[in-house]
Amino acid sequence: MNMGRILEDVIRKNSANTDRITAENTIGYVVAENSTGVVAESSFDNTSAQAIVKHMHGVLVAAAQSMVRDLDPPNKLCYMRVATRKFEYLIAPEEVFTITVLQ
Amino acid sequence: MNMGRILEDVIRKNSANTDRITAENTIGYVVAENSTGVVAESSFDNTSAQAIVKHMHGVLVAAAQSMVRDLDPPNKLCYMRVATRKFEYLIAPEEVFTITVLQ
Repeated sequence: MNMGRILEDVIRKNSANTDRITAENTIGYVVAENSTGVVAESSFDNTSAQAIVKHMHGVLVAAAQSMVRDLDPPNKLCYMRVATRKFEYLIAPEEVFTITVLQ
Repeated sequence: MNMGRILEDVIRKNSANTDRITAENTIGYVVAENSTGVVAESSFDNTSAQAIVKHMHGVLVAAAQSMVRDLDPPNKLCYMRVATRKFEYLIAPEEVFTITVLQ
């Protein structure tokens, strides 16, 4: 299954989240491949997209996944919302990709 | 200002979150002091409460706070929601205490 198909599948499956990608109040989004951190799609410039992938996908999602498992091994992280003073990160880690929407 | 007063103030200020503490679909909650990690109030047994404080307050909130600042120094973490397959952690880090509700 090629990357394009997987990406479409991920975006369709996260439609609730990805609908927000096109919603007016969305500041932007990043879709990146988990294993490589490569940005597959983003509304941001590359530097900003890479920073979000490095910090949110690389560090925060990884920390959340292990904390969830440490507390309850059979459990699994599905989705995170990080509300900050200026905007909110909605992060949906999937099998191959992770989608982050800022709103 | 004694701890009891601060705790009441934190809980009142987080009323949206703390209303959930009493809501039927709430699994439970933990209120712990940030500097010491001491559990101030919880509906869980001490071992479970301590584990949530150690993993969620100690590791995850700390990671989220630093990621938010790394991406945008003037920004600040207000609130986190960690949705897992079995339940959702609602985490409100305050100045002195952090409240986590499971629903």
